[in-house]
Amino acid sequence: MSEQRTIDVAATQMLDKAKEIGFLTTFDRAKAQEPRCTFGNTGICCRICLQGPCRILPKKPGGNKGICGAADYTIVARNTVRYIAGGAAAHSDHGREIAQVLLHVAEGHNHDYKITDADKLMRVAKNIGVETEGRDVMDICKDVASAALAEFGRVDETQELTWLNAYSPEERLDVWRKTTIMPAGINLSLAKLLHQTHIGVDADPINIIFGGLKAALCDFNGQHLATDLSDILFGTGVPVVTEANLGAIKADKVNIALHGHNPLLSQMVVNAAKEMQDEAKAAGAAGINLVGICCTGNEVLTREGVAIATNFATQELAVMTGAMDAMVVDVQCIMPSLRSAAECFHTKIITTMPIMKIPGSYHFAFDEDHAVDSAKEIIRLAIEAYKNRDQAQVNIPNIKNKVVAGFTLEAILNIFGKINPENPIRVIVDAMEAGEIKGIAALIGCNNLKGTHDHNHTAMARELAKNDIFLLAGGCSAQAHALAGLMNGDAVKEYAGEGLKKFYARLNAAAGLTEELPLMFHTGSCVDYSRQQDFINLVAKEMGVSIPEVPYVVSAPEAMSEKAVAIGSWNVAYGNAVHVGVIAPTVGSQLVNDVVTKVAEDVFGGFFFWEPDALKAAARTVEIIEERSWKIAMRKKALQAQEAE
Amino acid sequence: MSEQRTIDVAATQMLDKAKEIGFLTTFDRAKAQEPRCTFGNTGICCRICLQGPCRILPKKPGGNKGICGAADYTIVARNTVRYIAGGAAAHSDHGREIAQVLLHVAEGHNHDYKITDADKLMRVAKNIGVETEGRDVMDICKDVASAALAEFGRVDETQELTWLNAYSPEERLDVWRKTTIMPAGINLSLAKLLHQTHIGVDADPINIIFGGLKAALCDFNGQHLATDLSDILFGTGVPVVTEANLGAIKADKVNIALHGHNPLLSQMVVNAAKEMQDEAKAAGAAGINLVGICCTGNEVLTREGVAIATNFATQELAVMTGAMDAMVVDVQCIMPSLRSAAECFHTKIITTMPIMKIPGSYHFAFDEDHAVDSAKEIIRLAIEAYKNRDQAQVNIPNIKNKVVAGFTLEAILNIFGKINPENPIRVIVDAMEAGEIKGIAALIGCNNLKGTHDHNHTAMARELAKNDIFLLAGGCSAQAHALAGLMNGDAVKEYAGEGLKKFYARLNAAAGLTEELPLMFHTGSCVDYSRQQDFINLVAKEMGVSIPEVPYVVSAPEAMSEKAVAIGSWNVAYGNAVHVGVIAPTVGSQLVNDVVTKVAEDVFGGFFFWEPDALKAAARTVEIIEERSWKIAMRKKALQAQEAE
Repeated sequence: MSEQRTIDVAATQMLDKAKEIGFLTTFDRAKAQEPRCTFGNTGICCRICLQGPCRILPKKPGGNKGICGAADYTIVARNTVRYIAGGAAAHSDHGREIAQVLLHVAEGHNHDYKITDADKLMRVAKNIGVETEGRDVMDICKDVASAALAEFGRVDETQELTWLNAYSPEERLDVWRKTTIMPAGINLSLAKLLHQTHIGVDADPINIIFGGLKAALCDFNGQHLATDLSDILFGTGVPVVTEANLGAIKADKVNIALHGHNPLLSQMVVNAAKEMQDEAKAAGAAGINLVGICCTGNEVLTREGVAIATNFATQELAVMTGAMDAMVVDVQCIMPSLRSAAECFHTKIITTMPIMKIPGSYHFAFDEDHAVDSAKEIIRLAIEAYKNRDQAQVNIPNIKNKVVAGFTLEAILNIFGKINPENPIRVIVDAMEAGEIKGIAALIGCNNLKGTHDHNHTAMARELAKNDIFLLAGGCSAQAHALAGLMNGDAVKEYAGEGLKKFYARLNAAAGLTEELPLMFHTGSCVDYSRQQDFINLVAKEMGVSIPEVPYVVSAPEAMSEKAVAIGSWNVAYGNAVHVGVIAPTVGSQLVNDVVTKVAEDVFGGFFFWEPDALKAAARTVEIIEERSWKIAMRKKALQAQEAE
Repeated sequence: MSEQRTIDVAATQMLDKAKEIGFLTTFDRAKAQEPRCTFGNTGICCRICLQGPCRILPKKPGGNKGICGAADYTIVARNTVRYIAGGAAAHSDHGREIAQVLLHVAEGHNHDYKITDADKLMRVAKNIGVETEGRDVMDICKDVASAALAEFGRVDETQELTWLNAYSPEERLDVWRKTTIMPAGINLSLAKLLHQTHIGVDADPINIIFGGLKAALCDFNGQHLATDLSDILFGTGVPVVTEANLGAIKADKVNIALHGHNPLLSQMVVNAAKEMQDEAKAAGAAGINLVGICCTGNEVLTREGVAIATNFATQELAVMTGAMDAMVVDVQCIMPSLRSAAECFHTKIITTMPIMKIPGSYHFAFDEDHAVDSAKEIIRLAIEAYKNRDQAQVNIPNIKNKVVAGFTLEAILNIFGKINPENPIRVIVDAMEAGEIKGIAALIGCNNLKGTHDHNHTAMARELAKNDIFLLAGGCSAQAHALAGLMNGDAVKEYAGEGLKKFYARLNAAAGLTEELPLMFHTGSCVDYSRQQDFINLVAKEMGVSIPEVPYVVSAPEAMSEKAVAIGSWNVAYGNAVHVGVIAPTVGSQLVNDVVTKVAEDVFGGFFFWEPDALKAAARTVEIIEERSWKIAMRKKALQAQEAE
């Protein structure tokens, strides 16, 4: 870990507070793990059977392979794709939960949820081939939800995923079919990948990686339907103005943090909180204040404008404010240590999903038929906790920044449509063709304390903006920018290059929003990255190029979770260049590392590059974007010359 | 690793040969991995996200938990259940492949396969609730195959697995429902378990273990249907007489080893070989000689009487004979090093399944519509290889032992039925009640070079037999006994206790077989262990007790694969005491270790115990069996006393 723990001033204050009260945070725990085990860190430790662990020890006779004879490339490839399996399982299972609820709504079995965005339902139905003409909305909804669930249950390998087919360009589908990575069913592909990586099954790193990419495409598919069905259930976000950082926690209110990834219950808490302000007031508070952490935070930010408290690495520090009355958590990226942090204060940790418990916490098992009731009970628990809050322990950093967020694909096209109503996507293509902006980058992913918290995210953003690159953002990366005050119009003035500023000026003039557009368009949660790919697909189509030709780079400057590995992998399969700001556990095998960083480009057009230094990574990103633009320009020139002959 | 590498004399000879030619075997590679990393070996190394690896380092401030705050119990539980996921995926995916082929046979799309055991089809159909009366066999078959495939595709969590319901006692189903471990779908449960164990999802070790047990029950279900449908396709084994050990390889014949787990293609090779003896003779050989390794070997042994060459740990040594012309491998437990071993000779390594390749090997991608053709091509390749065999390099140990195998549940009941036609299972219950035999043990599982190859398997067998315990065996354990000459009637004379000898005498007198019954009844491959549980279920019913009361212990003296973890776990959920002869990677958490070795007994009646010393393990096994018998006797006495009052 670098000497500086975080670039976030509020977080630094809370780290001091933690030290003062003797609570060891994730920053301390990361320090304790230094130096990392080299075998595990580079991917050459195999624990797939009980004979090991086997480590690649080239200097010992017989040590250059595992006990079964697996070479470094087999071990590294297996470990890598098992990360993908974990990530794809998490994302897609989230989607399945949403689909299940939507089906019950359509069948009339559930009354706590409803169809909020019927237009989106119609668009999705049309895209996936569900008949809409003259049909009842609930019937259409049932077919859409059933089609989503069928993605998980399909076991006939001659078939293909519906969403992937509906939302990906034909050229990509062909590449995936040719490379045998086109999946039939989500859960089937995950189970098969586990089988493929069992002891004594696949030894061929390419075949293993292809199995992994199949699972990665399942991740994309699971993500896409999760986003679509969440939009149908809870609404499709439009630009919202709010604030970010620990200063969004209010000393005089009942503070409830919504944390995790799945909006099923948190959205109910948002709804219930609107009606329950008086109960909070009766307890002596000025009302209920909801804040978000991680991607549940992004969900309720995008749809409801709920403020961001903080992101992954600093989640414990929200408790250190002494003013957090309850944290409602669902699934993924929730530190078990929240419970220990809460013990130092009056904070209630409330787990809500059957597959996610923390010993010692309150557990409200999510039950879709009683979601509203559970949400109310949770809020009441928070109000009770508020009564026990020790105001002497309250210490909220006076730091918060304005945030403009809510940039779903629909919201982006709506803004572009103010300039070009006929063909909204033309707006950004024009800007690229005019050289006003160089290209597009998406800043995504987690926090990883192998580096300084949020440093790489924000340094990349500033550097890319300076180079006239239009920025999308999502997940904990988007939160990093929001916390640091980059997600607003002032940041455009401060950091954007001249071309990007001009582009923003035109957008702002046309958009007719009360606030200026922010330096990066926040597309939502990490489960929502398909919004970014859909955007790029439109750009490619409008430019008349294939995805791998688009001047576009995806960057996960602080990648941490298995989901990040899955996301990066489908981006590569999609043809995107993918920056990862931590050294990946593929480097233990030169072969596998070369495949994912070089050979992949020949096969898919996309590839990974590892670069922990943000400025170097930004320079490489600009270089890739310029190279892709140059290739398009050269091709155009050649075509023009040909035509002139 | 202990100083002695193997108890097998033939293997020892081949290890000398390997040394002579400079080939480093798995025994050398196991030596190179000593000492094992303590963190990995005890389960307290977490690599579930990219911030780590995190190791439990209690002496460092903040080091007693992972960076995310996961305690040792969370890390150990997650690692353990991910083993189960891998194992259940492997077993069940094998079952799914069989079901797919059976469906195509029933639909008339496939002509390479056929229904071989229509009686078994009828029994299975009746058991799982498929209507049979007055229906066409193919229609029934289609429904059975579809029901099997539905197990993999089901995503409605309110439903339950069909096979599990059909083949498990109601009392067990109730326990599983109460503990929330009753699965709805196989692939669903595996995907959910991956999600549950993602970073920041479940921190509760009990909840995680329950998720793991759910996956373990999927393993049982996948196994059971794999066995049932394989029996329908290829026949249900009856007692066969053959031989085992490297001496089964013939210097004058074209030798082909069938290795792996899935019989789909190997059974076709067996069929084709019968017709192609002349082609081998035309090449100067005395014919074609098939031998089996690992569980594909067990499949073709059980159904076809194919000899056993060797088992998991010594698979490379079959190549060292210099007389192995081809090894046909499918999935699971195939050492990638076979290819390097083959390079020292003329041997062709032929991979056959799309998810299993070894760089540099021949690959015949399994295609059910051309299975017969592929099998023939493979045999021709072996014949070609034979022509290039260097006879000067041939060195086959002159060691082989008589084997009596083929003890499917049907075969066992058929033998018992010779004594008691009305109620065959009564025969073994009588023997237990009379004190002739103390109880039943199943010796199962893999090889693990943390100990001496095959030592624990055979030492346990001899010790338990001496104590009048009736033995079932399967998987690589059964092969250990076969290789060592324990799987025949002579071994009964040499090793069985007086009571067990008497029991065998009665069985032999009635059985009417040409050979005496062997010291252990070999039930088949490791995917066939449901035959053993079905047997125990019948015993329990006949005794009028629940499964956890049956004087029965399952032992995996040299457990190695993830499948072994899954198998052990469903055995515990079933209520069985399970011995594992290697120290399990749960010991890094006292809590988790206590749960699986102690608390489990209170909840499920079954539990694990780790004991690497075979004699101590046998003593403990006898103790458990005696304790269970004593409890039944005490209860009976109490009941009699009550009735007398």
